[in-house]
Amino acid sequence: MRTIDLNSDLGESFGAYKMGRDEDVLAYISSANVACGFHAADPLTMVKTVRLAKARGVAVGAHPGYPDLVGFGRREMKIAPEEVRAMVIYQIGALAACCASEGIRLHHVKPHGAMYNMAAKDPRLADAICDAVAAVDEGLILYGLPGSEVERAARVKGLRFAAELFADRAYEEDGSLVSRSKAGAMITDETEAISRMVRVLREGKLTSITGKDIALSGDTICVHGDGEKALAFTSLLRERLLAEGMLVQAL
Amino acid sequence: MRTIDLNSDLGESFGAYKMGRDEDVLAYISSANVACGFHAADPLTMVKTVRLAKARGVAVGAHPGYPDLVGFGRREMKIAPEEVRAMVIYQIGALAACCASEGIRLHHVKPHGAMYNMAAKDPRLADAICDAVAAVDEGLILYGLPGSEVERAARVKGLRFAAELFADRAYEEDGSLVSRSKAGAMITDETEAISRMVRVLREGKLTSITGKDIALSGDTICVHGDGEKALAFTSLLRERLLAEGMLVQAL
Amino acid sequence: MRTIDLNSDLGESFGAYKMGRDEDVLAYISSANVACGFHAADPLTMVKTVRLAKARGVAVGAHPGYPDLVGFGRREMKIAPEEVRAMVIYQIGALAACCASEGIRLHHVKPHGAMYNMAAKDPRLADAICDAVAAVDEGLILYGLPGSEVERAARVKGLRFAAELFADRAYEEDGSLVSRSKAGAMITDETEAISRMVRVLREGKLTSITGKDIALSGDTICVHGDGEKALAFTSLLRERLLAEGMLVQAL
Amino acid sequence: MRTIDLNSDLGESFGAYKMGRDEDVLAYISSANVACGFHAADPLTMVKTVRLAKARGVAVGAHPGYPDLVGFGRREMKIAPEEVRAMVIYQIGALAACCASEGIRLHHVKPHGAMYNMAAKDPRLADAICDAVAAVDEGLILYGLPGSEVERAARVKGLRFAAELFADRAYEEDGSLVSRSKAGAMITDETEAISRMVRVLREGKLTSITGKDIALSGDTICVHGDGEKALAFTSLLRERLLAEGMLVQAL
Repeated sequence: MRTIDLNSDLGESFGAYKMGRDEDVLAYISSANVACGFHAADPLTMVKTVRLAKARGVAVGAHPGYPDLVGFGRREMKIAPEEVRAMVIYQIGALAACCASEGIRLHHVKPHGAMYNMAAKDPRLADAICDAVAAVDEGLILYGLPGSEVERAARVKGLRFAAELFADRAYEEDGSLVSRSKAGAMITDETEAISRMVRVLREGKLTSITGKDIALSGDTICVHGDGEKALAFTSLLRERLLAEGMLVQAL
Repeated sequence: MRTIDLNSDLGESFGAYKMGRDEDVLAYISSANVACGFHAADPLTMVKTVRLAKARGVAVGAHPGYPDLVGFGRREMKIAPEEVRAMVIYQIGALAACCASEGIRLHHVKPHGAMYNMAAKDPRLADAICDAVAAVDEGLILYGLPGSEVERAARVKGLRFAAELFADRAYEEDGSLVSRSKAGAMITDETEAISRMVRVLREGKLTSITGKDIALSGDTICVHGDGEKALAFTSLLRERLLAEGMLVQAL
Repeated sequence: MRTIDLNSDLGESFGAYKMGRDEDVLAYISSANVACGFHAADPLTMVKTVRLAKARGVAVGAHPGYPDLVGFGRREMKIAPEEVRAMVIYQIGALAACCASEGIRLHHVKPHGAMYNMAAKDPRLADAICDAVAAVDEGLILYGLPGSEVERAARVKGLRFAAELFADRAYEEDGSLVSRSKAGAMITDETEAISRMVRVLREGKLTSITGKDIALSGDTICVHGDGEKALAFTSLLRERLLAEGMLVQAL
Repeated sequence: MRTIDLNSDLGESFGAYKMGRDEDVLAYISSANVACGFHAADPLTMVKTVRLAKARGVAVGAHPGYPDLVGFGRREMKIAPEEVRAMVIYQIGALAACCASEGIRLHHVKPHGAMYNMAAKDPRLADAICDAVAAVDEGLILYGLPGSEVERAARVKGLRFAAELFADRAYEEDGSLVSRSKAGAMITDETEAISRMVRVLREGKLTSITGKDIALSGDTICVHGDGEKALAFTSLLRERLLAEGMLVQAL
């Protein structure tokens, strides 16, 4: 039986600022990437998010980001790999302790925003991140873009790697994501988006933006819980995966 | 053979800002309280400080503080106990991961500045801190003021508690520290300061500010490494303790 | 003709975090207190908020707060008056420049949250704030609690002072606000709340929580725009004031 | 009589963290670039720095930087020009208010670190910065690299521009600074460094790294006050300029 993980970014509120509909999206997903206080979240938000995820049986991962709260970790920053390594260690540890305080173990790590995107292409950043994960706990699974520098670095380091798929994004022929600035970068038709994912999971194939079929595999699909529309899509995707006889669960 | 721990606050640099003479003071102490990024320190400073401490065989503890970098965690903040609990969990976890990345285990926790002082008198804060420590790792030792609410809370929680002594401070009859704003609060004569510590360790007694002898016991003495004078005093204190036949080592 | 100002806190969003319905509440108010980046807001949010206020002809004031984004400036912090003075100067200047860049002048200053409440009772803080305002621009109006230390300090300093009323709060016999932790602190009946304000403006009197009438005067009423209910109340209050033949406008 | 300005970055301390020997360097310079709280400095440090500069008759400028305290504003960040514009407005205003509180007027603006370097080459950033300066106060002088995008943008905007020279840096044939990563980027011989500056001021010429003479002009020379060596060099440079019959004063 084919199993697939559905992951979503959670715990992005900060103090009085609320973001995301965490309780709602937890009903659909099997793993949660919890912000660690650098691009979003504060300690109490983190503890509460872990508590919520545990109550729903959802696996908890760290979602480390750049130290850029006002930019939500989405802005590129030129940070030395040694510093990125240290900030990933720091954030993983902070969330691991939140998990420990709620009686569960940290399950995975998924870098956030600009860190995720930059590491996908920069071997030194990718190495720094994988080195950080391994240095804290070799049992942690690293989520990343299949075919990226992060996958390469994880393999070299001996880390378990989960290939992440994006239902709403178009892919280049080389398996990388089409830049959001290009026309056609987003798959806006929901039925098509879902069918594309089913095909990847069934056949290991996807039609790239040029129209050519490419080989692609995935262990986890990234979904969103930040609005009515995103939640509805996540629900539809999950239903379709179940209808296809797949099992939605964390790795 | 009487053993005594000498502890000092370390890793208080932040980015381009340097503070403290960590390498120098490490030669004299047996345990280090490493700042965790809230009142001081950044992730790379933390990793490097743990590395230095490990190289000198000095036990590493977490030194969590209030989220007040510009005030260095020394300003009182009225924070809900639930939030203090979460921020202590967070900071312990962050430093524990830095320790793990260097192949050592976190040894203890000592709250910093205003958090230390407020918790000594506020039972709800003390409970929140002890609850945080126990929730992350019940084997961690908590450093605190003997006779304080923190000691009480640690006992209730079943945590190992290390009574901390301050060589340069005068004590009230009830064993609390004389407020710095009062005349005579600081013991400025170094020889006297050292002799007072030796007496506490040998006899369990100390002359309070009123002239009356009080019972006082201690497991660890707080020393400083932030200047030539502080380092010289720390060296003298250590020599005297060794000359008295005591063993300077972490609990 | 009696004129009265309606003021509201605006520009409290921060980066990707949205807060408040600024565009909606601007339709009802005559002056806006714009957050200055310490307890809320970022520079771009400030510039945009000033632009919005200007477009609606609403006077813009600075809303300086404590440097506590995660606590939204609502937590008491024990900060030296000299530092509070400097942080008020800084925040006023930052917003004044945002105003200048949009071609308007800064109109007033209203401290936020814990700074507002602490200064109302602490003469040294009140002096520090008034000194800061006068040091930057003696023409700025200071909003504060009537009868508070802030009013006293403003009078001494020669600053224009605007007495602020809270429609949804009960008052003690001495004219201070009933602490939120006390029963009856909030006036939950909207019609009553509005009638109380009309009476203060017409007669200079209000029924205190003990049932005794007290003398109270006001130049500006604080309203909120953070939700449907708050907006509806603000609209009702404004309509009633207009129906009473009053003019809603900034001082 | 040839006049030349000597400028230095000041007010870079932050809370308990001290940086730079501001009082010493103030004896040699004619204009100070004061950090504005984003990459360094806190409000009280800013007020005190302005006070010191005023006492020495040194002109005060704003030194806005990226919001990256841990990286000291030296790390490239990909920030939208609209946001850079707002953060420059904000920081100029904050320092202008500190100046007003000490009874002086803000004199100039010099972007810091990564903002300075990125804007020199990026026309959109350069435009955003010049637009910010002009929007706050058209009388402010902008310091920047001669021949850079910042100079171009300042000319277009009608701002007064001061061409900045670096005594310790080698220049490419096109008048840009040789990247620090290249061999020969730094002029380490102090006598040579000073003679090069004198030649630029006298003849408008400098020998580039390729050995070819290039045309270069300057209004202000950047000096440092962060150590014994830097101070000694600054003193020597000043003496030589005076000995050459030049006048060291702000524009």
